[in-house]
Amino acid sequence: MAPEASMRGYDPSAAALLTFHDKVPRFRDGSDTPRAYLERCVAAIEAREREVMAFAYLDLAGARRLADEATTRWRAGRPLSPIDGMPTGIKDLMETHDMPTEYGCELFRGHRPIRDAAPVAALRALGGVIIGKTETVCLGGGDPARTRNPFDLRRTPGGSSSGSAAAIAARMLPLALGTHARGSTIRPASFCGAFGLKPTFGAINRQGVFSMAHSMDHVGVLAGSLEDLWIAAIHIALEAGGDPGHPGLYGGTAVPAQRRPQRLIRLDMAGWAETDAATRAAFEAWLERIASAGIAILSRKDDPAIEAYERELAAMPELWRALYRYEMRWPMLQYLERFPDKLPPRLKQGIAEGQGLTLAEYRAALVRRAHLRGLHEELARRADAFVTLSSPGPGPIGMDQGSAVFNEASSVLGAPALSLPLLASDGAPVGIQMLGPWHGDEQLIAIGRFIAQETLGHRQ
Amino acid sequence: MAPEASMRGYDPSAAALLTFHDKVPRFRDGSDTPRAYLERCVAAIEAREREVMAFAYLDLAGARRLADEATTRWRAGRPLSPIDGMPTGIKDLMETHDMPTEYGCELFRGHRPIRDAAPVAALRALGGVIIGKTETVCLGGGDPARTRNPFDLRRTPGGSSSGSAAAIAARMLPLALGTHARGSTIRPASFCGAFGLKPTFGAINRQGVFSMAHSMDHVGVLAGSLEDLWIAAIHIALEAGGDPGHPGLYGGTAVPAQRRPQRLIRLDMAGWAETDAATRAAFEAWLERIASAGIAILSRKDDPAIEAYERELAAMPELWRALYRYEMRWPMLQYLERFPDKLPPRLKQGIAEGQGLTLAEYRAALVRRAHLRGLHEELARRADAFVTLSSPGPGPIGMDQGSAVFNEASSVLGAPALSLPLLASDGAPVGIQMLGPWHGDEQLIAIGRFIAQETLGHRQ
Repeated sequence: MAPEASMRGYDPSAAALLTFHDKVPRFRDGSDTPRAYLERCVAAIEAREREVMAFAYLDLAGARRLADEATTRWRAGRPLSPIDGMPTGIKDLMETHDMPTEYGCELFRGHRPIRDAAPVAALRALGGVIIGKTETVCLGGGDPARTRNPFDLRRTPGGSSSGSAAAIAARMLPLALGTHARGSTIRPASFCGAFGLKPTFGAINRQGVFSMAHSMDHVGVLAGSLEDLWIAAIHIALEAGGDPGHPGLYGGTAVPAQRRPQRLIRLDMAGWAETDAATRAAFEAWLERIASAGIAILSRKDDPAIEAYERELAAMPELWRALYRYEMRWPMLQYLERFPDKLPPRLKQGIAEGQGLTLAEYRAALVRRAHLRGLHEELARRADAFVTLSSPGPGPIGMDQGSAVFNEASSVLGAPALSLPLLASDGAPVGIQMLGPWHGDEQLIAIGRFIAQETLGHRQ
Repeated sequence: MAPEASMRGYDPSAAALLTFHDKVPRFRDGSDTPRAYLERCVAAIEAREREVMAFAYLDLAGARRLADEATTRWRAGRPLSPIDGMPTGIKDLMETHDMPTEYGCELFRGHRPIRDAAPVAALRALGGVIIGKTETVCLGGGDPARTRNPFDLRRTPGGSSSGSAAAIAARMLPLALGTHARGSTIRPASFCGAFGLKPTFGAINRQGVFSMAHSMDHVGVLAGSLEDLWIAAIHIALEAGGDPGHPGLYGGTAVPAQRRPQRLIRLDMAGWAETDAATRAAFEAWLERIASAGIAILSRKDDPAIEAYERELAAMPELWRALYRYEMRWPMLQYLERFPDKLPPRLKQGIAEGQGLTLAEYRAALVRRAHLRGLHEELARRADAFVTLSSPGPGPIGMDQGSAVFNEASSVLGAPALSLPLLASDGAPVGIQMLGPWHGDEQLIAIGRFIAQETLGHRQ
């Protein structure tokens, strides 16, 4: 362990992220206000933004105005929603009518949309205090992130929702929106010790959000607690709906009560082989702790169906690639042809790999996905949730976004994934990832709350 | 019958629309060329565009350059595709990187995208000669069309693919792209005596195409013959793919051979009640003629399942509305709030109707749609195709787009619909509409070719 990292010595139980909903009683009685809450966020931004670089754009004046309005509403007992006054960051792949939307990309420098993306419009209607646009990598692709990990500035925060996760980690915000087509919500949540939900495919309306691979892209939610995460997610979904043609996020408007699972299925995804020894050890120790609390942990040794599914999961990175490379052809092949100088190198290479792919190959990938979805849904019935790592280790040192090998499965399948900041490895955060069946989002939150309390010793 | 209409006296058998693919042997031997073909289109545009107003934008210089390149390729025996050199119009709801894309809407005056919509990019790759952008109504909504019906200038050409259908009718083009979320391809095809295909939902990639109701919007294809229609549609789909997550258009790359159906199911959709007497009579006479050729026509009298389905179809306009009003809320509620002066009156009224709709109501509509899709698919197995009218009469006099009451079913269901210009009523065109099961597009073309020959006496 590097001396610097050991000095920082990340401890999941001691990490104190910002929470919002627990302040609501004080907003009501006036002993705290959304404006005062915002000022605490601003103080953290002023203290750390220079080194963390979480934001592509900040509108503190606008945020203060919104926070004052929310303060008045809470005082009058008439909040617009339970998240009225909640400071929020918006990943800069989402359109905002009053802030630039540059997609982290030279090609869109100065771009000003005339509208808000659907989840942004929903946040405004709910009283959310949009403080700015969070950093991402060019068009959410695979190039290095500019943002740095607040727990260890040498490390990446992960990507492509880099700024959203880093802002949570640095206590700048209690809530930030991300997207996820490969690992863009779960991976940075893991590296930044944040709670992150990649909901069921289509659960949160993503119209007006840039999407590289439309059949795998999701709006993700990152937060400092599961309570804040769920309350924001469900209210945004009720306001904005899901993707057109989809039923949207299912669940109640309050955070679900903790639920003690009876059985969890441990999945060693494609990423297990590249997981470092310290992270493996942390995961095994955590599993033992959960098992010792009386929860059955099923693995491939217990059920040949689990073994069969794990074998199929090994092919997930390849399947993800087949889908992604084909779907990104539009509009990326045009951008590559006309604006090659405005695209970063990895993105260009990825686009080029999609040239020449055929509809027949894509259809074969869709058929394979349908088969895997069937396996996943069937196996999900045999337990309360799947558990695995969110990443094969902490965010690597350097600006590379790190591996998404644990994240491609849920992107391809469309199944919900939740990252819980429960582990430390090499002195830095690593997430536990829970997966469920389609529309099992609320249950993941309920079980996640139990698991987090069991592990951290305090409620989430 | 008005004296003017009777003078014009539309006769489906005598209508001579432009065809392209039958010229290919002459492109090969040099006795005709794509450039000469284009000049014939230009002559028709010069003769009639002033009164028809089919185009929002024309780029004749660009089209001549493309046609010359295609001429060279055909001469060298190296066409890019079977539609190399085919003059095509693009509905102005589709992005074009080299022409304005104004969506027929004041709000987007002068808008210049940096990319082509997916089907436009495909057309370019196939050698299509994009001659201009065809007129539509503001954002494809329900306001009156500016374009006039070439067969009778007092009548509407229908909408919202108004310019695309009118350009086919006026012999300005052999092919034009439209869209369809309610009746926007089948209705103008009916009023303009054109062939029109609204393919299976997702069959042609519509990324970069403005979509008001994303779970019901389609790229439609309008043409002067079924051969041209199919060859263009299948090559565009193979090049662009379908919508992400969808398998795209199924079928061979050549036009399917004529197929004589054994059984057709006659459907009296929600629109039968508002169909005028002359059009009813024309439809009944046509059905008798088809029946006398030995094809069984099944109706609700023959099968209680047909009667049950017709009862359900009566609710289709209401279901369409529930889906459409909810889905258009994004981004339309924002446009209504911020740019009310730039939206026309019917569109504004429609947007306002969506205010206050809930996710719960939308979910109920999705469930109802799933049920109707099941009924449709099951009933489709009992015959070779469904037949009905494309519209409850010819395009009405005035600029109102006319009724879409025969078109909402296929928009809601996502099932393929084909309009054949086989009837005249009140001296103006009316289409016969054929519907099939999901992915039955190619079979509709094969049966449509037989039916058209049987009715018109010549091949299509």
